[in-house]
Amino acid sequence: METVRALAYARRHRSRLIADLGAMVRFSSVSADPARRADVRRCASWLAGRLKEAGFDEVRVLPMKGRPLVVAEWCRLTGSPTLLVYGHYDVQPPGPASDWRTPPFEPVRVGDHLLGRGASDDKGPVVAQVLALEAWLRGAGRLPVNVRCVFDGEEEVGSPALAAVLRSTPSRFRADAAVVSDTRIPSPDRPAITYALRGSIGMEVEVTGGPRDLHAGAFGGAAANAVEALCGVVEGLHDRAGRVAVPGFYGRVRAWPAAELASMARSGPSDADLLRAAGGPPLAGGPDRSLYERTTIHPALNVTGVVGGHAGPGTGAIIPHRATAKLNVRLVPDQVPREVASAIGSHVRQSVPRGMASRVRVSAWSGPVLLDRSHPVLRTAALACRNGFGSDPVFLRSGGTIPVVESLVRHLRIPVAMIGMALPDDGMHAPNEKVHLPTLHRGVETVIWFLSELGRLQPNGGSADRSFPGPAVKAS
Amino acid sequence: METVRALAYARRHRSRLIADLGAMVRFSSVSADPARRADVRRCASWLAGRLKEAGFDEVRVLPMKGRPLVVAEWCRLTGSPTLLVYGHYDVQPPGPASDWRTPPFEPVRVGDHLLGRGASDDKGPVVAQVLALEAWLRGAGRLPVNVRCVFDGEEEVGSPALAAVLRSTPSRFRADAAVVSDTRIPSPDRPAITYALRGSIGMEVEVTGGPRDLHAGAFGGAAANAVEALCGVVEGLHDRAGRVAVPGFYGRVRAWPAAELASMARSGPSDADLLRAAGGPPLAGGPDRSLYERTTIHPALNVTGVVGGHAGPGTGAIIPHRATAKLNVRLVPDQVPREVASAIGSHVRQSVPRGMASRVRVSAWSGPVLLDRSHPVLRTAALACRNGFGSDPVFLRSGGTIPVVESLVRHLRIPVAMIGMALPDDGMHAPNEKVHLPTLHRGVETVIWFLSELGRLQPNGGSADRSFPGPAVKAS
Repeated sequence: METVRALAYARRHRSRLIADLGAMVRFSSVSADPARRADVRRCASWLAGRLKEAGFDEVRVLPMKGRPLVVAEWCRLTGSPTLLVYGHYDVQPPGPASDWRTPPFEPVRVGDHLLGRGASDDKGPVVAQVLALEAWLRGAGRLPVNVRCVFDGEEEVGSPALAAVLRSTPSRFRADAAVVSDTRIPSPDRPAITYALRGSIGMEVEVTGGPRDLHAGAFGGAAANAVEALCGVVEGLHDRAGRVAVPGFYGRVRAWPAAELASMARSGPSDADLLRAAGGPPLAGGPDRSLYERTTIHPALNVTGVVGGHAGPGTGAIIPHRATAKLNVRLVPDQVPREVASAIGSHVRQSVPRGMASRVRVSAWSGPVLLDRSHPVLRTAALACRNGFGSDPVFLRSGGTIPVVESLVRHLRIPVAMIGMALPDDGMHAPNEKVHLPTLHRGVETVIWFLSELGRLQPNGGSADRSFPGPAVKAS
Repeated sequence: METVRALAYARRHRSRLIADLGAMVRFSSVSADPARRADVRRCASWLAGRLKEAGFDEVRVLPMKGRPLVVAEWCRLTGSPTLLVYGHYDVQPPGPASDWRTPPFEPVRVGDHLLGRGASDDKGPVVAQVLALEAWLRGAGRLPVNVRCVFDGEEEVGSPALAAVLRSTPSRFRADAAVVSDTRIPSPDRPAITYALRGSIGMEVEVTGGPRDLHAGAFGGAAANAVEALCGVVEGLHDRAGRVAVPGFYGRVRAWPAAELASMARSGPSDADLLRAAGGPPLAGGPDRSLYERTTIHPALNVTGVVGGHAGPGTGAIIPHRATAKLNVRLVPDQVPREVASAIGSHVRQSVPRGMASRVRVSAWSGPVLLDRSHPVLRTAALACRNGFGSDPVFLRSGGTIPVVESLVRHLRIPVAMIGMALPDDGMHAPNEKVHLPTLHRGVETVIWFLSELGRLQPNGGSADRSFPGPAVKAS
């Protein structure tokens, strides 16, 4: 009965979802850009106000180092489990304005979609979570479980502050389970629970030769060129077959049994699905491995950006003395971030030409995550998807990384239900990002059902197959 | 007697040289930057006003396409030769502000030096030329030869407008000889006449894969990366020995007789001189070829800049779909710019991975120049140097390119006296550019003497060894 009231509330307030999302998109909360700190803080304040309005007992904005955590609590039920609701309100940099058909920080409604940076990743799912919680609090008068919300302002840069808190004082965000909606579903009618994430390492390589740029006429033919040296380093990161050429890189990559590969082939996206989602660039698949396997159970190394010399308009006839590249590594079980970062660093330093200096910096890392698909909390999430979307979810691996999920699993040792609300063609991290509003509405109802079902689970003991926290949670 | 009066005028007005240079440096006349067009135009206006003040009969600012030519004439002498005085008031981009110890567009006097972008290249020599001309006009009451000044607003981007005029209507700037002060001297006490320039080609390479950047998590391991592809292209431009790997690149490079190499070794800078001028980066010399040879009679190919993917602060976890590199080629006799550009274009297109698109654009080119050291106009310039600097000049090849010199030689078929006023450590095209003021003063006196001696030459006929225009002028 309470669930019905919550669902009815959510349906009455559908327009609120769009209004909230529009308000959030207007904050250019780019966590990677120090110049946008004020926008990040303004977005945090707005979100805190919204959570108070939704009916939370206690809402706080923890300033951290300029990209606040927004924390809200409603913990009135003794003996009931506590659910940690996680999302992030920071966004990826928008990239060149010329690549956007509409301004990235102006929400634009086009049919069933809302366009704008962060609409899908992760502001849309955040407003959906908030509306689901409000629906219980305002529609049913209470929540069915205790809830602790943590909304992150630096997920896109690896959640360093939250990860540090979870590592040093896990009791601060103690919970019995978590729900995170920052993952994808195959299509609007096909919900998904994500049970595996790749890990990630961010690195920066700088190559320097000499104290300053030189005149390309006066010294061309005699002076070493830092951009060319860096390009040689980048070229040396992969072999001709496209495999990572760093010695030891693949040493700990887990080989999966045929049964798991078959299960993946049944439930995962086809090569055609992934090609369509990518918008048709040259993808490196192959008969031996599907694109789904390549992007989930195999590691990857990408140069995400490079800059050196005269990059502005026109010609700058110089021999550049400095160039930098940013690297992004994706890790799978049982790779160890520290080991891989160290191997890449050594390889890079050895491939810099003699007489040139190199500097390798690791900006962030996070290990891979693997959850037990049969855990009661994940089964409960599946049930909620069935009610919210009208069809059974698939269990998927993601090639992406949510560092905070690894922290929750590693430090709080709790199961994390990753309930997807994003579609493959939403353009997360790309220009012209958008979100499918009917899918967000289904997401709201799924979260309402998840809370409802979770309230029926026994936190300590109960029937064996539904008890939680379960034992089979691990950060690989 | 008139020469003495001109010299006296110049000595009385030494402070004017510094004031003029300071005024010019304040204009951020970066020709490569479309956003600076107004500064370029303001600098042109200022220079036109200065030339009127110096006593020219007719001064015009020819707008061209936004980077004007400033033209001044004093042609009152019938039967006397006409000298074309060339310089440029545009400058190279300053590069990152953090690399400058003082702001690039604020002139700062430190001892005998004046610091600022363009102080040496080429605003210092321009104000020296103007003061020398004023010294004749105001100090001696007239010029000893007819003079036509052409001050260029786009030398640093290859002088396209002036080159077009010289090609289409050479009569517009008809002259019997030209003097250009945009070259170096070995040291303040060692003047130099430059008799050879390398040619130059500016190119831009863009590699594109797919319609947009992709999420490095979702697609890492399956999607081709445009930055990595471009780095492979760059890596393939040179072989392991550092030689240009473009087929045919060296095909027309002239082999020089031992006598010329010996002459170069006697008059040119040593490897140690060039290393010092470069500020100590790794230079690729060798026992078989001096650095002077490498930078003058051998061609070179440099990547002057590269940009792709997320180049801003922080991490952008993307697989870039587009990356660009700028190339600068330096050509020597008897390489043909069109042929070399075409060979590089083909090589680049062939080295782009399958499935990726490439675009190669040639932004500007200019052939190499070789002048006869024994030409009477060059001998006259040498005499002027001896009077102005107090010592005989060396005849040098330059590794740089002055496209307008090639145009003057090719289309007007006149000798060009390249009288240097810049020192090797001036930092032309680099941060913290500066000019040595005592050298500029000597430059003023050298130009005064050059005009004086030129007035004594017979334009048509006269004694065989002093006649001009001579026959042995060629653009190789």
